[in-house]
Amino acid sequence: MARVNRQVILRNRPVGMVDSQTTELKEIPVDELSDGQALVKVLYLSIDPTIRGWMDDAPGYLPPIGIGEVIRAGGVGEVVESKSDRYKVGDIVSGLTGWQEYAVADDAMGSMSSLPEGIEIPVAMNVLGTTGVTAYAGLLEVGAMKEGDVVVVSGAAGATGSSVGQIARIKGASKIIGIAGGPEKCALLTDEMGFDAAIDYKAGHVARQLHELCPNGIDLYFDNVGGEILDAALANLAMKGRVVLCGAISGYNATDEVKGPANYFSLIINRGRMEGFIVLDYMARWPEIQAEMAGWLAEGKLKHSEHIVDGLENAVDALNLLFTGGNTGKVLVRL
Amino acid sequence: MARVNRQVILRNRPVGMVDSQTTELKEIPVDELSDGQALVKVLYLSIDPTIRGWMDDAPGYLPPIGIGEVIRAGGVGEVVESKSDRYKVGDIVSGLTGWQEYAVADDAMGSMSSLPEGIEIPVAMNVLGTTGVTAYAGLLEVGAMKEGDVVVVSGAAGATGSSVGQIARIKGASKIIGIAGGPEKCALLTDEMGFDAAIDYKAGHVARQLHELCPNGIDLYFDNVGGEILDAALANLAMKGRVVLCGAISGYNATDEVKGPANYFSLIINRGRMEGFIVLDYMARWPEIQAEMAGWLAEGKLKHSEHIVDGLENAVDALNLLFTGGNTGKVLVRL
Repeated sequence: MARVNRQVILRNRPVGMVDSQTTELKEIPVDELSDGQALVKVLYLSIDPTIRGWMDDAPGYLPPIGIGEVIRAGGVGEVVESKSDRYKVGDIVSGLTGWQEYAVADDAMGSMSSLPEGIEIPVAMNVLGTTGVTAYAGLLEVGAMKEGDVVVVSGAAGATGSSVGQIARIKGASKIIGIAGGPEKCALLTDEMGFDAAIDYKAGHVARQLHELCPNGIDLYFDNVGGEILDAALANLAMKGRVVLCGAISGYNATDEVKGPANYFSLIINRGRMEGFIVLDYMARWPEIQAEMAGWLAEGKLKHSEHIVDGLENAVDALNLLFTGGNTGKVLVRL
Repeated sequence: MARVNRQVILRNRPVGMVDSQTTELKEIPVDELSDGQALVKVLYLSIDPTIRGWMDDAPGYLPPIGIGEVIRAGGVGEVVESKSDRYKVGDIVSGLTGWQEYAVADDAMGSMSSLPEGIEIPVAMNVLGTTGVTAYAGLLEVGAMKEGDVVVVSGAAGATGSSVGQIARIKGASKIIGIAGGPEKCALLTDEMGFDAAIDYKAGHVARQLHELCPNGIDLYFDNVGGEILDAALANLAMKGRVVLCGAISGYNATDEVKGPANYFSLIINRGRMEGFIVLDYMARWPEIQAEMAGWLAEGKLKHSEHIVDGLENAVDALNLLFTGGNTGKVLVRL
């Protein structure tokens, strides 16, 4: 008897926030495996802001998701059938599974990789997955963080942001400031995650607070949000300051024209640099970075939290948490 | 009998374009020289967009010009009196003379340097002065131009822009496109300055034309203007493209809030970099850069043009040429 695959497909391109019209839950039979393939039962989906970007019909670092196609997303699953030399039944593998119950791993495409052993899946998907590597590569490679730097990160209570602050601490930043929404998240940053200070962007003037906290300016600003917070950071850039562009969560659901950073001229006055990156470019260094992060995790230097939402049918709600600020830490959907 | 110095001082901070209320022509007696000083009779003033920035009461890479102070500007003059060991009567020297007939050079401050010999003063002030070094350092150091790069420059018929294009040619760019205002300037770029193509931003859609001319994107964009043209370039950035921020002439006279580059997100998608600089940071390399530029000039590889305005009383009009696009090449005031 053929297995049934439940999939969430893109029905209409969203205008603003993703809603009930955007996606559709569909049931289709699982195809017979070809030689070199394995069937993966998805256990967890990684919910990342970039998924919202892929839903737009706009140029990006990957093509848009087509109408009728499964929503693209990273995930982790267990191999339940195999005609593959590479994947064995019982293996736990990670890759772009998409929002569905069953995904196919393919020897020829090398599409799935194994997870680090001995670490719970949600934790591995957070600090040892795309999220952790994004924080590491953005801060240390793109931002070229040096010992003694004053580091500011926005979206600081999110999965990437909280790792950025902690890696900055480990690598010897002199001051680490997180920007987040609400007193609970701010308290988490200073009380649990080792940030020196936190700014609640919903309460008070961000640029002024940055000026008070960083009287000599910001050496490295790690931007997850864009918009007015990016502008506030630019206004407080130190000489030779660096802005790492990781995301722009404030703009992903915009229906009006996105406003650019009006203070970009600060890059001239301060001989600053603003640079974007995509974590996929650091694939070759993944094992090395993962190993270093795993070491810190084992030593208890890397705090983390996962926000788990149950059920494929709730994936849209899980995605929207990222934009309403309803999450703390890494958002995952458990199937 | 004491000499009389005519000075242009800042009377009111400009709102928008500089006008007759902004400055005032003042006559004061020239002070007696102290030991270690020399009196310089100013021959030419360098008219640069940055002067407009210095008139605002806003943070910059140098302090604002104070009300009642002489307008700050580079210039070249002849030593006419000397109590200095360094400057002799008859020497032609270059430095921040300001908008006045007489300036003082001071041994202790090392404020004036000599001009390259055997080259007409206006030419030396253009390609071998701040302008030429700005073009060189911005393109090759900040932008790290490589052989084969597709290079786009805005304000291309201006002094800096036209040097940028020509240096890019000498250094092996595969394609060089200039953006300028009006058919005459565009013709100058392609017919005289060796640009492969020119885009008249006053006629037609800049982003679309860039897309047609650079189907694989822009490797290096040298920005003198900011605003919509910066956005058009960002929309056409190649993978790993670099944006060199030299100036933002479209914004210097803005009375409304300046709009930031809405397409800055292209820096993420294309793993791009946007970096600002100030030519003063390259002072240590000045002699080396000047020597290389002088070589190209002697070989006829570096075309240039100077737009000379006569009379200190016309300095404001000369400055405004930069913002109305009334000039081609380097604007100088001859006293």
